[in-house]
Amino acid sequence: MAKDKEAKKGGGFQLKVPKGTKDWEGKDMVIRDKIFNSITQVFKRHGAVTIDTPVFELKEILSGKYGEDSKLIYDLADQGGELCSLRYDLTVPFARWLAMNTSVQSIKRYHIAKVYRRDQPAMTKGRMREFYQCDFDIAGTYDPMLPDAEILRITTEIFEDLGWNGRYTIKINHRKILDGIFAVCGVPTDKIRTISSAVDKLDKQPWSEVHREMTEDKGLDPAVADKIGEFVNLKGGEDLLAKLQANETLTANESAKKGLDDMALLFNYLNIFNVMPKISFDMSLARGLDYYTGVIYEVITEGSAPASAPGAEAENAQKSSSKKKKASSSADDDRSDDPSVGVGSVAAGGRYDELVAMFSGKTQIPCVGISFGVERIFSITKARMEAEKTAAAVRLTEIDVFVMAFGGKGFTGLLPERMEVSRTLWEAGVKAEFSWKVKPKLPQQFKQAETGGVPFAVILGEDELKEGKVKIKQMGLPDGHAEKDGVLVEKSNLVEEVKRRLADFNAANDIAEKISAANVH
Amino acid sequence: MAKDKEAKKGGGFQLKVPKGTKDWEGKDMVIRDKIFNSITQVFKRHGAVTIDTPVFELKEILSGKYGEDSKLIYDLADQGGELCSLRYDLTVPFARWLAMNTSVQSIKRYHIAKVYRRDQPAMTKGRMREFYQCDFDIAGTYDPMLPDAEILRITTEIFEDLGWNGRYTIKINHRKILDGIFAVCGVPTDKIRTISSAVDKLDKQPWSEVHREMTEDKGLDPAVADKIGEFVNLKGGEDLLAKLQANETLTANESAKKGLDDMALLFNYLNIFNVMPKISFDMSLARGLDYYTGVIYEVITEGSAPASAPGAEAENAQKSSSKKKKASSSADDDRSDDPSVGVGSVAAGGRYDELVAMFSGKTQIPCVGISFGVERIFSITKARMEAEKTAAAVRLTEIDVFVMAFGGKGFTGLLPERMEVSRTLWEAGVKAEFSWKVKPKLPQQFKQAETGGVPFAVILGEDELKEGKVKIKQMGLPDGHAEKDGVLVEKSNLVEEVKRRLADFNAANDIAEKISAANVH
Repeated sequence: MAKDKEAKKGGGFQLKVPKGTKDWEGKDMVIRDKIFNSITQVFKRHGAVTIDTPVFELKEILSGKYGEDSKLIYDLADQGGELCSLRYDLTVPFARWLAMNTSVQSIKRYHIAKVYRRDQPAMTKGRMREFYQCDFDIAGTYDPMLPDAEILRITTEIFEDLGWNGRYTIKINHRKILDGIFAVCGVPTDKIRTISSAVDKLDKQPWSEVHREMTEDKGLDPAVADKIGEFVNLKGGEDLLAKLQANETLTANESAKKGLDDMALLFNYLNIFNVMPKISFDMSLARGLDYYTGVIYEVITEGSAPASAPGAEAENAQKSSSKKKKASSSADDDRSDDPSVGVGSVAAGGRYDELVAMFSGKTQIPCVGISFGVERIFSITKARMEAEKTAAAVRLTEIDVFVMAFGGKGFTGLLPERMEVSRTLWEAGVKAEFSWKVKPKLPQQFKQAETGGVPFAVILGEDELKEGKVKIKQMGLPDGHAEKDGVLVEKSNLVEEVKRRLADFNAANDIAEKISAANVH
Repeated sequence: MAKDKEAKKGGGFQLKVPKGTKDWEGKDMVIRDKIFNSITQVFKRHGAVTIDTPVFELKEILSGKYGEDSKLIYDLADQGGELCSLRYDLTVPFARWLAMNTSVQSIKRYHIAKVYRRDQPAMTKGRMREFYQCDFDIAGTYDPMLPDAEILRITTEIFEDLGWNGRYTIKINHRKILDGIFAVCGVPTDKIRTISSAVDKLDKQPWSEVHREMTEDKGLDPAVADKIGEFVNLKGGEDLLAKLQANETLTANESAKKGLDDMALLFNYLNIFNVMPKISFDMSLARGLDYYTGVIYEVITEGSAPASAPGAEAENAQKSSSKKKKASSSADDDRSDDPSVGVGSVAAGGRYDELVAMFSGKTQIPCVGISFGVERIFSITKARMEAEKTAAAVRLTEIDVFVMAFGGKGFTGLLPERMEVSRTLWEAGVKAEFSWKVKPKLPQQFKQAETGGVPFAVILGEDELKEGKVKIKQMGLPDGHAEKDGVLVEKSNLVEEVKRRLADFNAANDIAEKISAANVH
């Protein structure tokens, strides 16, 4: 704040970013990039391609897609020409792209990009006006439930590769089962969507409140609401599926029957993919968006990021009240203002077979997808790294070698020599730096290397250079280590000597191993 | 066009992206990502970090920074709250960030992101309203010319890693030398900037036209213009520097003397960095932007992308008239409408020591930077790949193994087995796919693998599975090759067998080698 004011005086206006936006910098930026890279690697492992659409679309493309939330769309000023709006999500631009590119009948695409919502920001809860979404969608006609199963497999791979180590649950349900339940319970057809919305609040509200909303606010017969209650509070796995399949009233409903058949096939596939242990078949999951037509899912984690600033203590505090706090219903469309709701679901999605047709009457391309809440995933991953003390090991740069020089009286700084050695290392692909001072002091150079966490120093001395030798020193070796004071090598062998030590260092280094396991470069 | 119309009918409105924007997809997207990754690797090799700023800034941050071009700034609609504009470049947001973060006194940062200009688009020339910039800047106080030299070294590494193989030239000049020349020739102080702009057109116009502009349009004494002409048509290297240093009239001017001293030191460093062979000391280079205070540079290539659609023939045609076509003056601020001007410079930048102070009166942070015209670099790289027939080898996905099955009468499709083998491969980090059909035909599966350019098939047969074996087949092996028909391996050893073959395949594969040399994943 103080610095803002100072800057204000200097420049004559307030130096800040727009409300609800932020600069990404420092370790946060490094961790975020590692997360993006890790997720991208999983998508590529499953054959996905990426598409990059413009940050703004024609206004009419977005119109009528987001219901009440349309008021949150950012419009560009009318400066003549087309009226445009900033994208609100990545799904509508993808559907627009599919409708435009009629030759594309099937695709697996991912898209990691910023979206824009003119919402009331709540920075501490990660609710921003500019934020990243990470979407993966499969478009095309395939045999039933196979793309759906692979999306859930991809989801588990992503959280495992991020080091979440099983600490998440995939809640799953099916729109057709819900619709069947509502029909069987006696909900009038024109009330099905609004009753479904009420059910979707069960992760934040007790049944009594949802019941009240259904009957008092939405005029549902209380007896019908009671019947709904018998179903939507059910949770389980294959046991619950068997129970529902044994319910003859339910299976007599065509929609419910179709949904239960889908679910049986999906669970079969998820067993083969080793995903079932992460699944919670949850009849209260309804998902807010209207366009879902089949299976729907949502990933929650107990170790959700806290409502206040991230940190290990806050995370632990939250665990003890996780029942209340694991709340919130989706990665993208639930942006509750309830301050007791922390970061809730970390991914959500489902099957939407009819969205593309909204753009082009003829083309009907079935789709199934998932959106990862990368800002929430970032907060949780960072909190976990801080708890595990691995965040401190995150380096800002990837420099492997600091090239330095020392000398006694009349020391010239050996600048040309430092430059030439650096050039040689760069030419070999080694990440190297040297001090941009003509005559730097040795302690200054060591400090610069240590600040950057650089693992190796190459040290030039006039006498050694005369003998064609340079010293390689691994930083931070313990006393008594054979190479503690560095080792002299032939200058002509420098690249080879450095590369060998770097390979050993990286192999021995836990963090490097973890990163490499996650295929992060 | 036809498909647009069809879509229009279906959806009730025109399905298109906004004017001057495009969707990136298919091979273009893959090549673009490889270019970004290759460039990023070079930045990281030199210890750079990245910063991500919001896509829009407060309107007043951008005001007064772009002169006449301010009319090209996209504003957001006034929907209540702060007035914002889309960023016009990445330099002003960087300067704003430096001014806000007063604790940061030095940084090497890169930023690859889209910027927005409400310009008249010329898609065939790569002039878009939404386009990528790729900026690298060094902020901080260091010994003279060392950061400047490293930026030029980075520039050569980037073009070499992109496979341009020396086919580019770095034009270089110094604002202080130019100012000195203008002073010595007798240009009135208040005319120096406008005369400098005229000089900057020398790469597109003959001297006679520039002379006319100076004298007729800008009221310069013709004798003064003649004197300027003696200087600004000079080109060379260290020879030209020596010639200028020997000019006592020039060196008597303090500004010229300072610029020549800088240049001598820089050339010394560039020799050590092996950059001098790429340098053309060009007195006609003036650069449009007002904020440069020291060395300025611009990278041009003869193999510039053509004015029409990219393609090898067009590229060759252009080479024969390169004098005319290598025109255009900068990667970011020259957006000429002259249809004879193809894609001109591919990178440009210089030292700007006073920009940050525009935002905060107190803080003065010297900066030097370069902006790579990544859209132009993309066009040229793609044209080169097409000429070299390497573009055809660019694969859309990175899938290494296609898991398929075959069988005779009563063939079940072996779906669970294909899923289980795929899962095993994914768990080992192998990029694998299988057909999302319960009973796919073998030719269909081979076709899917071939279409994707997948190098290996893992083939499951009922009889082989009973013996615990599966077949690995490298796709496209020539007749007579020992493994042409595939080789049976123990299913329990599958991962190991696949990984070994993949490693051999990648090592043997020229393209894979090239990509790996460029450190592209």
